[in-house]
Amino acid sequence: MPSRPRMTGSVHVIGAGLIGASIGMALQAQGVRVTLEDLSPTTAALARDLGAGSLPAPAAEAAGSVDIVVVATPPDVTSDVVVAAQRRFPAAIVTDVASVKGIIVDEVGVRGGDLARFVGGHPMAGRERSGAISARGDLFEGRAWVLTPTSETTSTALTAIRRLAESAGAAVVVLGADEHDEAVASVSHVPQIAASVVAARLEHLSDTSAALAGQGVRDVTRIAASDPGLWTQILVGNAPAVRRVLMEVIADLQDLQEALGAIARDGSHDLGAPGSRAVIAGRLAAGNAGHARIPGKHGSAPTAYGSVTVFVPDEPGQLGRLFNDVGAAGVNLEDLRLDHAQGQPFGLAEIFVVPGAVGHLTEALTERGWRLHG
Amino acid sequence: MPSRPRMTGSVHVIGAGLIGASIGMALQAQGVRVTLEDLSPTTAALARDLGAGSLPAPAAEAAGSVDIVVVATPPDVTSDVVVAAQRRFPAAIVTDVASVKGIIVDEVGVRGGDLARFVGGHPMAGRERSGAISARGDLFEGRAWVLTPTSETTSTALTAIRRLAESAGAAVVVLGADEHDEAVASVSHVPQIAASVVAARLEHLSDTSAALAGQGVRDVTRIAASDPGLWTQILVGNAPAVRRVLMEVIADLQDLQEALGAIARDGSHDLGAPGSRAVIAGRLAAGNAGHARIPGKHGSAPTAYGSVTVFVPDEPGQLGRLFNDVGAAGVNLEDLRLDHAQGQPFGLAEIFVVPGAVGHLTEALTERGWRLHG
Repeated sequence: MPSRPRMTGSVHVIGAGLIGASIGMALQAQGVRVTLEDLSPTTAALARDLGAGSLPAPAAEAAGSVDIVVVATPPDVTSDVVVAAQRRFPAAIVTDVASVKGIIVDEVGVRGGDLARFVGGHPMAGRERSGAISARGDLFEGRAWVLTPTSETTSTALTAIRRLAESAGAAVVVLGADEHDEAVASVSHVPQIAASVVAARLEHLSDTSAALAGQGVRDVTRIAASDPGLWTQILVGNAPAVRRVLMEVIADLQDLQEALGAIARDGSHDLGAPGSRAVIAGRLAAGNAGHARIPGKHGSAPTAYGSVTVFVPDEPGQLGRLFNDVGAAGVNLEDLRLDHAQGQPFGLAEIFVVPGAVGHLTEALTERGWRLHG
Repeated sequence: MPSRPRMTGSVHVIGAGLIGASIGMALQAQGVRVTLEDLSPTTAALARDLGAGSLPAPAAEAAGSVDIVVVATPPDVTSDVVVAAQRRFPAAIVTDVASVKGIIVDEVGVRGGDLARFVGGHPMAGRERSGAISARGDLFEGRAWVLTPTSETTSTALTAIRRLAESAGAAVVVLGADEHDEAVASVSHVPQIAASVVAARLEHLSDTSAALAGQGVRDVTRIAASDPGLWTQILVGNAPAVRRVLMEVIADLQDLQEALGAIARDGSHDLGAPGSRAVIAGRLAAGNAGHARIPGKHGSAPTAYGSVTVFVPDEPGQLGRLFNDVGAAGVNLEDLRLDHAQGQPFGLAEIFVVPGAVGHLTEALTERGWRLHG
């Protein structure tokens, strides 16, 4: 682990669920004093027992004893809790963790909160499970943690919350609240919707038809296994931005549907108005361009890796032997895709490496007796 | 490799591109005599030089010397070439490899072909690159190869083509032509469209917003990097079925968009008509149900694997050491996902194993000094 910036001062967490308890665990591991509260005494006690912080007596709530308040409640009560926390702790800087930011910042202002010492936050880490019982101190390591200060936020407040997020192991990204909401609509919320509606088409296929599913549809629909209750909350919380992006998606699909209709009406797949083909190719090319915007490893610019595909017998230890041989060749594996061959006792491992290493790796693996694909 | 059924007889391949040349290579490797032809003499000669088959003198085209003809031309001329081949080789069984099947079968009938000795085929293997130069004899190993006989197809014809596909290493799936077209629309063509239009939304994001992309959107949009020209042909070829499935997707997205609109109009994310939430949750639940239909490893029923997530330092050989330790624990790795942590010199490896092995693997890896996540 790299050394991380140490924060000082004491932190009070309101809401001891997955995120709140995980923040407590992460900060306590760094020597920060954390206190906890939750509407549910059971949840608060569980989080304490798991090492997320101590439960102060109400008298201990002296104004000066808390430097930072983290509001980790459900999004629908976040702004109210932020404003109330600012009244209880008049010297503290307050942050939240809701996955939608514009409406929270607006409501904190409207309800009389002090925007100078409020910093909206969104740690981009989560689990399929919720509750303190699923919390862990390393939840934020290597994850983005978005902060959305306004023009009224003091630099002292921003610096304090940045240090808190970094102490928890996260990489801080500063964005405007509306820009955050638009960004997560595009990079998270609408992809979830697309995965779900594509997966829904498989529900009523015959077993034989479903057996034709390959790696492409597996990747597209992996996140369709997510919890509908949690995702309904997330989508509702960011309804305006999600709807805007969704309408763009629908417009593209309508164009494609009409182009395919014009081709189908010609009665032959080999004819069709040339304009229709241009529409289809154009939408696919826009997908290429968008795909290229996704950052590569470690948040750096996208890198086009080369790849080597290897037949791997489906037995314990074979992948270990393969990666040992990759390591022995002095090549760093950048990414990996495993594809299980239908009806065969082996799988295909596609090993992604920097393009310059493909030739050397191919030779090294062949020498060590691996059968390469292609 | 498992032993595979051997086919007998001789095969003539018309169209020596990626698929045709790969079939030739696969069959020649099994001792089958393959002859080739292509409209382009250069392509034919290249395929021959690559080991895909021999180029017969025209006189060698004696009717009785060819048992099976494989038509591997572009889809828009496939049915014409099938009918012409049946006239040239009156005793031969003819198959094709076009990725759309209903229209081909219809056209072969309409144009006077002999449906008794025609078996529509679709080997579900491909590469991002095309042409004989990209061909390889193992292209079909472990892949599905769909055959779409009609009521007129003789069992002799079906058996012969089944044996051909199995000799090339593929797993044969028999389907009706229309059922095939509907199936690939759902499991391949519409997922491609969805990936492309979701990826297109990323094109104009700021760098900071794009940096928030996580594993979910990476998976959903991976195939958005595909070749627009090739995919335009594929979508046009299956226009009616793709359009039908696409209209279902659009209808679901419209429902979601309207539900989000009803929520957004309430002016607060924490209200909204309860009916709107039910629509959203219902669509997400349908995605769960569809996702569960995707077959697991080796074409068997879906299995819910357990997983163990491990911090892996970003250095050559570390993954090898990890998988060695997994193998030494006697646990078979079923699947793997690598997630690169943002701004950190390590990655997370999520190792999927049968649920009963999670506890033992967790202990074994901890003992060997691995740091587990969670």
